[in-house]
Amino acid sequence: MGLLRDIRSPEDVRRLTAAQTTQLAAEIRTFLVDQVSRTGGHLGPNLGVVELTIALHRVFESPRDTLVLDTGHQSYVHKLLTGRQDFSALRKRGGLSGYPSRAESEHDVVENSHASTALSWADGIARANQVRGLGDRHVVAVIGDGALTGGMAWEAINNIAAGDDRRLVIVVNDNGRSYSPTIGGVANHLDTLRTTRGYEAFLDWGKRTLHRTGAPGRFAYGWLHGLKKGLKDVVAPQGMFEDLGLKYVGPVDGHDVAALEHALRRAKAFGGPVIVHAITEKGRGYTPAEEDVADRFHAVGKIHPETGLPVAPSRFGWTQVFADEIVEIGRRRPDVVAITAAMLHPVGLAPFAQEFPDRTFDVGIAEQHAATSAAGMAFAGLHPVVAVYATFLNRAFDQVLMDVALHKAGVTFVLDRAGITGDDGPSHNGMWDMAMLRIVPGLRLAAPRDEATLRAALRQAVDVDDAPTVVRYPKGALVDPVPALEELEGVDVVARHAPGAGAVEGGARVLVVGVGAMAGTALAAGESLAAHGLEVAVVSPTWVLPVPPALVKLAGEHDLVLTIEDGVVEGGVGATLAQRAAEQGVRTPHVHKGLPAKFLDHASREQIATAQRLRAEDAVRDALAALASLSSPS
Amino acid sequence: MGLLRDIRSPEDVRRLTAAQTTQLAAEIRTFLVDQVSRTGGHLGPNLGVVELTIALHRVFESPRDTLVLDTGHQSYVHKLLTGRQDFSALRKRGGLSGYPSRAESEHDVVENSHASTALSWADGIARANQVRGLGDRHVVAVIGDGALTGGMAWEAINNIAAGDDRRLVIVVNDNGRSYSPTIGGVANHLDTLRTTRGYEAFLDWGKRTLHRTGAPGRFAYGWLHGLKKGLKDVVAPQGMFEDLGLKYVGPVDGHDVAALEHALRRAKAFGGPVIVHAITEKGRGYTPAEEDVADRFHAVGKIHPETGLPVAPSRFGWTQVFADEIVEIGRRRPDVVAITAAMLHPVGLAPFAQEFPDRTFDVGIAEQHAATSAAGMAFAGLHPVVAVYATFLNRAFDQVLMDVALHKAGVTFVLDRAGITGDDGPSHNGMWDMAMLRIVPGLRLAAPRDEATLRAALRQAVDVDDAPTVVRYPKGALVDPVPALEELEGVDVVARHAPGAGAVEGGARVLVVGVGAMAGTALAAGESLAAHGLEVAVVSPTWVLPVPPALVKLAGEHDLVLTIEDGVVEGGVGATLAQRAAEQGVRTPHVHKGLPAKFLDHASREQIATAQRLRAEDAVRDALAALASLSSPS
Repeated sequence: MGLLRDIRSPEDVRRLTAAQTTQLAAEIRTFLVDQVSRTGGHLGPNLGVVELTIALHRVFESPRDTLVLDTGHQSYVHKLLTGRQDFSALRKRGGLSGYPSRAESEHDVVENSHASTALSWADGIARANQVRGLGDRHVVAVIGDGALTGGMAWEAINNIAAGDDRRLVIVVNDNGRSYSPTIGGVANHLDTLRTTRGYEAFLDWGKRTLHRTGAPGRFAYGWLHGLKKGLKDVVAPQGMFEDLGLKYVGPVDGHDVAALEHALRRAKAFGGPVIVHAITEKGRGYTPAEEDVADRFHAVGKIHPETGLPVAPSRFGWTQVFADEIVEIGRRRPDVVAITAAMLHPVGLAPFAQEFPDRTFDVGIAEQHAATSAAGMAFAGLHPVVAVYATFLNRAFDQVLMDVALHKAGVTFVLDRAGITGDDGPSHNGMWDMAMLRIVPGLRLAAPRDEATLRAALRQAVDVDDAPTVVRYPKGALVDPVPALEELEGVDVVARHAPGAGAVEGGARVLVVGVGAMAGTALAAGESLAAHGLEVAVVSPTWVLPVPPALVKLAGEHDLVLTIEDGVVEGGVGATLAQRAAEQGVRTPHVHKGLPAKFLDHASREQIATAQRLRAEDAVRDALAALASLSSPS
Repeated sequence: MGLLRDIRSPEDVRRLTAAQTTQLAAEIRTFLVDQVSRTGGHLGPNLGVVELTIALHRVFESPRDTLVLDTGHQSYVHKLLTGRQDFSALRKRGGLSGYPSRAESEHDVVENSHASTALSWADGIARANQVRGLGDRHVVAVIGDGALTGGMAWEAINNIAAGDDRRLVIVVNDNGRSYSPTIGGVANHLDTLRTTRGYEAFLDWGKRTLHRTGAPGRFAYGWLHGLKKGLKDVVAPQGMFEDLGLKYVGPVDGHDVAALEHALRRAKAFGGPVIVHAITEKGRGYTPAEEDVADRFHAVGKIHPETGLPVAPSRFGWTQVFADEIVEIGRRRPDVVAITAAMLHPVGLAPFAQEFPDRTFDVGIAEQHAATSAAGMAFAGLHPVVAVYATFLNRAFDQVLMDVALHKAGVTFVLDRAGITGDDGPSHNGMWDMAMLRIVPGLRLAAPRDEATLRAALRQAVDVDDAPTVVRYPKGALVDPVPALEELEGVDVVARHAPGAGAVEGGARVLVVGVGAMAGTALAAGESLAAHGLEVAVVSPTWVLPVPPALVKLAGEHDLVLTIEDGVVEGGVGATLAQRAAEQGVRTPHVHKGLPAKFLDHASREQIATAQRLRAEDAVRDALAALASLSSPS
């Protein structure tokens, strides 16, 4: 690690000779494979941008020039070149974030890991530079080809192309796939751009030929111009971007630092918005990653650096249960179809796609389209199941409300990674869904607590044909089954503890409501409260929104209601229950445990639960305090 | 009205001769001008699509073929041709909706009036037709050029262009402007398509010329193809759509029924996705509408049919106060810039744009980009003010959360038409904002109650540079000033009534909280409660989110809290106050008045308030009932 070790800032990168940049790239690649295989993280995307990141920091001067990285999971090389080389606690509490972080460095700008935002950020920053008389500063946005399928990117391109002299460079990092192979019109177009060759040489020949033909005067300019554009369209068709008014440079080999620098310097000198089209290979230089079509290497847990296999294979998880059950449903119900937003494998739809390829639609990173096209499918007689990470459904709130719910469309949204996800940082936590979706008229939301209730909830959801249904579950391994002792009109009672004796609060009746995967925490809290001499019922309603009437009734039969959920407590399920109860004159006091409406820094799920006081012991402490305050004079 | 009168269904339209269609168009135009000037409604957009709608119903067979109209405000002609000719109560309760309505007709599909959704709907319906073996049915989406700036439209085009044999026809209704003159790359491209001529004739000449040049064999195909595409790019550059893989037909004169039918039949016969580019004039045939650049005729109140002037000019409204104050702020603060999503005039930014053209950005119908580019501007040292209709901010929830709030960006969102809008129907009511935004960390929301508090809230909002701020106000005329008697830490007390005598609930203390423009209702309710012998304080906190601590304290000093807001009561300001109070051990019971989480049919605002029990007398009745139940045994 001769060179990398001495890189403290981008200035050090700019001082290297061309030959040294090649050596630096090799050192970085070795570093990444070695480090990320130990800590886990996004290996493939970062191996793909080693040379590109070096070239960017040589041509532009961050932070004077602004570098915006879309989704940010390809920021590891950027971190290494901007003075951050301790990767030992990557994505762990106190260690480096897996994404850009303003707290870490003045070279980091956008922390958001939702896709397709970089062009809008860059447009805003470039406009601000102009307004503030700093228009000579450059703004560079790096965006993957997959993220170009997102509508936001289009909105931004449309604005950027409106035409002026802003110093804005869009680098399309084109590896031919985002999470999964990129599909759609823009991919076809990029593919044509990528695979055609020899434009310049051909153009020379064309000009000579044209000169001989002696085209009539009134057509001469148009002919020449048309020929030029036409030839480009044959040999390197740049139509789309240039039609919109954007200068296009490329395609350029994204693993050749010299070629990249040349292209970026051309773009920098142009004096207006430019697209630089760089062709990269995700996982470049690391054979297991390069060959893995299912893209398991997009983000990896800890892996063996030579075989690329997981060091500790994960247990049977929530995603796999969904993957399995949706295939069962698909066999029984020919009207059920599946939609994914570029996440076929991560959300568990691969087996369904395998068995029902004509009933599976990957729409690209396009959650809005996923929701509204699902409404269209429902109108035309199908029952679509849209499977996304919980945090990404925020992108489609308006469409869930106005297209699906307003039109009473039977669409099922399956939200994977709901609740705390942890190490991916604040923008991946799937904690907003329940508070956001509770205001959607007619929407029914299930938070199953284990494998059996997840399977049942999915089957029930696809039977609803006049409203949106949502099934949400957390990231990771399944919890142990939590069987129901009895069912009260849709509310499962999972534990009952008779009143104990001897405790100061003896005799008070507490209802503990565990939402979804928090059932385990609720059970533990219930046991602990019982040990304090209280009469306790622990319930787990699978369908939590709208609040089941039986739950309101149960609330009225207790002296305290304790709700535990892994979503924002602000307007969450507990708050909704309290509001329903109050409306019906039920005056039982409530204690709501959940996540605060704050952004949670990256850490393990356990660490976050502890920090946010979401463990059983925290719930017990708050419930006991509430009971104590109730028995004291107001 | 010889022909129109006898049109009962699209079959009747198909039976007409070509000459009769011209007469029918003239009759429809007369009908629309006459009717809409009496009732109010969207005149311009409908005058623009008279011939197009006739041609669509002659070429396609609704409802077997599906017709999807983007935004839907151009559906009046469609209504006339599908058996709905009683426009006397247009947009009034019990009368025709101003938008498509499934309840009205089997020919109506999409009721949503948010822009840019039609292509996603059409994609979904066409996919479903294929899955169900009904692939010979056609799906036609009609979308304005302005709506193509919306990211959703791009997401859909990218999917539609992915290439198969779906019978999907996209009609781009290009009048060169949406709400205001369309800007950006796509507009430039459409403009080129629109204004160039003579492609076919030129191509013939090109082919002959090429034949003479004797291009070398290995280049011959490429040359011919390149020439063809190149010439198209000169004469009628179709690059963008064809690059994406979409067949393009046009441009076609959108006021020539025969030409439209010819183009639509070609598209219908093609057997795959096709774009038909129709050039129309908004307001065609009605001089005042054609000439009005500020687009006051997009939607009209009642107007004089000959002058086009409003019959009753509206009073000084909320929008005008914002328009005025933001200019004042702009003079004082050179860092304040304004962003609109294609609504410069309707949201009141025209005076600001007039004075500060370089600090005003119209991003097109692109709320996501508006929010995120604002975050970029804030990062780079500006304070952007994003002015949108409240209902349209739902499109940018994820961006407000992840780009603005997560990055602690000082961006001010100004929400016009918050609360009940009424006659525009369910998707225009701005009732979701407060419940949606309450979960955004750090966000501060003001609901001013009158002109003075609106001006103050705007000035305070632009002074916040580390978090999103929101200022929301309703549609229409200003209410009378509601002066504060005193201020308690940010909470204005607007009325106090000492305890009366003789009433059964005598002596109980009621806190009435009027949110924003509901202050007037709160005052009236307070008076009425006082007349029942109660001690009443009526308060109006301008900044309602987060809930002011003083409000929680006040709640604790009363026997009942009555909150009145014009947003969804589910998780609204009242519910948030109740949650905060409960957390702090304040046990005062609450009555929350607001809108239910339901879609409200079109009617006047007064009618909706009555139907939803949101008048002062409703609040009083509920408060008295709550007090009565409190004094009875639990």
